Amino acid sequence: MEKKQVKVGLMGLGTVGTGVIRIVEAHQEDLLNQTGLGIEIHKILVQDKEKARSVAIDQSKITVNPDDLLEDPDIDVIVEVIGGIQPTKDYLLKALAQGKNVVTANKDLMALHGAELLHKAQEKSCDVFYEASVAGGIPILRALVEGFSSDRITKMMGIVNGTTNYIMTKMSKEGAEYHEVLAEAQALGYAESDPTADVEGFDAARKMAILSTLGFRVPMNLEDVQVRGISQVSKEDIAYGKKLGFEVKLLGIARRDNDEIEVSVQPTMVHKSHPLASVNGVFNAVYVHGEAVGETMFYGPGAGEMPTATAVVSDLVTVVKNMKLGVNGRGAVAPYKEKKLKTDDKKLSKYFMRLIVADKRGVLAQITNLLAEKNVSLDQVIQQPYQDSGQSEIVMVTHTASKFDVTSVLQTLEGMDVISEIKSYYQVEGIDKEAGAVHHE
Amino acid sequence: MEKKQVKVGLMGLGTVGTGVIRIVEAHQEDLLNQTGLGIEIHKILVQDKEKARSVAIDQSKITVNPDDLLEDPDIDVIVEVIGGIQPTKDYLLKALAQGKNVVTANKDLMALHGAELLHKAQEKSCDVFYEASVAGGIPILRALVEGFSSDRITKMMGIVNGTTNYIMTKMSKEGAEYHEVLAEAQALGYAESDPTADVEGFDAARKMAILSTLGFRVPMNLEDVQVRGISQVSKEDIAYGKKLGFEVKLLGIARRDNDEIEVSVQPTMVHKSHPLASVNGVFNAVYVHGEAVGETMFYGPGAGEMPTATAVVSDLVTVVKNMKLGVNGRGAVAPYKEKKLKTDDKKLSKYFMRLIVADKRGVLAQITNLLAEKNVSLDQVIQQPYQDSGQSEIVMVTHTASKFDVTSVLQTLEGMDVISEIKSYYQVEGIDKEAGAVHHE
Repeated sequence: MEKKQVKVGLMGLGTVGTGVIRIVEAHQEDLLNQTGLGIEIHKILVQDKEKARSVAIDQSKITVNPDDLLEDPDIDVIVEVIGGIQPTKDYLLKALAQGKNVVTANKDLMALHGAELLHKAQEKSCDVFYEASVAGGIPILRALVEGFSSDRITKMMGIVNGTTNYIMTKMSKEGAEYHEVLAEAQALGYAESDPTADVEGFDAARKMAILSTLGFRVPMNLEDVQVRGISQVSKEDIAYGKKLGFEVKLLGIARRDNDEIEVSVQPTMVHKSHPLASVNGVFNAVYVHGEAVGETMFYGPGAGEMPTATAVVSDLVTVVKNMKLGVNGRGAVAPYKEKKLKTDDKKLSKYFMRLIVADKRGVLAQITNLLAEKNVSLDQVIQQPYQDSGQSEIVMVTHTASKFDVTSVLQTLEGMDVISEIKSYYQVEGIDKEAGAVHHE
Repeated sequence: MEKKQVKVGLMGLGTVGTGVIRIVEAHQEDLLNQTGLGIEIHKILVQDKEKARSVAIDQSKITVNPDDLLEDPDIDVIVEVIGGIQPTKDYLLKALAQGKNVVTANKDLMALHGAELLHKAQEKSCDVFYEASVAGGIPILRALVEGFSSDRITKMMGIVNGTTNYIMTKMSKEGAEYHEVLAEAQALGYAESDPTADVEGFDAARKMAILSTLGFRVPMNLEDVQVRGISQVSKEDIAYGKKLGFEVKLLGIARRDNDEIEVSVQPTMVHKSHPLASVNGVFNAVYVHGEAVGETMFYGPGAGEMPTATAVVSDLVTVVKNMKLGVNGRGAVAPYKEKKLKTDDKKLSKYFMRLIVADKRGVLAQITNLLAEKNVSLDQVIQQPYQDSGQSEIVMVTHTASKFDVTSVLQTLEGMDVISEIKSYYQVEGIDKEAGAVHHE
């Protein structure tokens, strides 16, 4: 009576889909060993049946009609690697309605409609797994669900976009300007010809929405994530950061304090003693702080066909194990907690600011008086002549302050006669308390 | 007919054992949700029944007789947190012989007798899990088994001993000498009063034996691991390393090339661009290179009660899931490949060397001629006066060379008149090819 073979409907046969077929074929025995069941790619949805493929496929399995997969009662699992929001969302909702489990690599869909899919899955007792949607080469979603199952996550910080991290790394190592490095990255194929989704932080924001939803069990929407991209980061900021012990990284930051949540993506000054500061090039990393375990970090390639296909297959193996356990849909991944977002007065951070000011006696005193008035105190200050302008440049790192107070400081500075320009400001991370004693040295 | 409750026999009720009880109690519902079965701590082996405990325990569960657990047919899983080789090994062999699954945090036992236990487990279709034995706060063994199940691991490098990493970090940050920092670490309780097992690398070697056995599926013995500790590392070496872009770390290194293996533990010059270089203080990290996924790294606390207890409970959850799946003992964790160790001519690395030489014309030429003769070429050289001794100091970083050739170079240098002293030599890591393009910049 019991099944011997799990039948999979594969949607999409690009590089990732082909990789999935290769891995499943090459590791049949291993998979059987792990799950007690064989895995068969039963049908494959493609756009063009006639297209040449780099992998041998039984032509009878290929179809251009999604319902050949969705309405096939023999198919237990849909693996979706076609991407896009529609019609993909409808396909997956239909799959779930038919009681089929789902594995997807689709970050756009999960960031925008993840909660809907997960609730539908729960209702139908099906799994939805999506490890490949965030940092394909890092088993971070699995770690959040399994490794932290008996812990409570309080903070996650991620370098979750390879393109921007490549650009920030190059700017830091070569002292180059943003536009030079971006052009080079585009020429090398590390950045798209329209790089907006990457450099303005939208891609990272999608991944942070997914991570925070899963890590905090709260239905975070994409619009709950505050986003600032890297296009305004200057080589001077990076140089000053270095002088003070920081690297500038595009960081996704998700925090939970007293059940209130903040999630953002922004260029951030990360202290060199923090492990995220040395995640370079196209690599990704996710740092997780749990109450019991303390600090952990997961590092690896963020994209690539084989890392992504490997993540998809490892999800598929989990679905098959759950089928045999009879616990599909019970992984408790659907967000069930009420969402409470922090107001700005509760968002606490240290800040870096760089100002150009008139070179007059008492200017620094004026600024520090303002800061004191707004409850912002200083940890470090550098003042020096600004080029040959007869002005001064002031670089400050604050102690912990609220976003509300810092915004108010910036607005007031903006209107002061002695301030020529607010060149930049950044949150500062990696010297917080949770970083552990040794980071403070 | 089917079980509703899994009964656990807990051996040991120290801080980790107490933590296990707390987690299991606090997360009953979650565990039930994940596994479909409840988990009950059924009996507990202690040394002293009368001792006061920090957790409320039904006194009838406590016993000083191991057979009360091992011979109880109701007990499905033995969780061992007493440590030591004997009688613990006999207990666990008996547990397996009785068909009980085993979860252990015992690195000494697993490093010395892991293969025997794993084969016994396989014979009896039982699980043996031991996540907590290596870097308790990092789910590295799980990642090696699950995440890399459809990949092939070629290299692992680990900072797997918190005490020595604390010492190396302090020496690097403060420019302090080894003996000063060791004394301080002992005063703070970060190092034992007899620090030998840590500082001579034996603890790290045990963990590398466990990691390489699991990662390469080969029965590595502790004596297969070449070990050098940190007691000879000087602040001068660290300062020169920094100048050339390296941090000195006690690194476990396991490599597989053409199915031949080398495993060692030694103080190593790690290039600053490598993520291991910035793992500081008591933290642990394991870097894994897989053929499909490329580079990944797992970072977290190496020890501590709660991280260790959390790892033990997550293993316990896996055992329970496997029980329901009916796949206990099928995780294919027992090493099954033939062990082939590399000879020294196949162990390839870059090296750092520091020599004190006579300040005579032609000395450097003599040295470089010797190197060329032995197939060792140079990447970087620094020569400068040595203190006020009238001698010179030469610091060299080689290109990739075999251990055989480098040993031969060191022996020849030792006998040369113009060489006063070979101050130190280190393997160099983090600038190899597998580190990816961006690391090379």
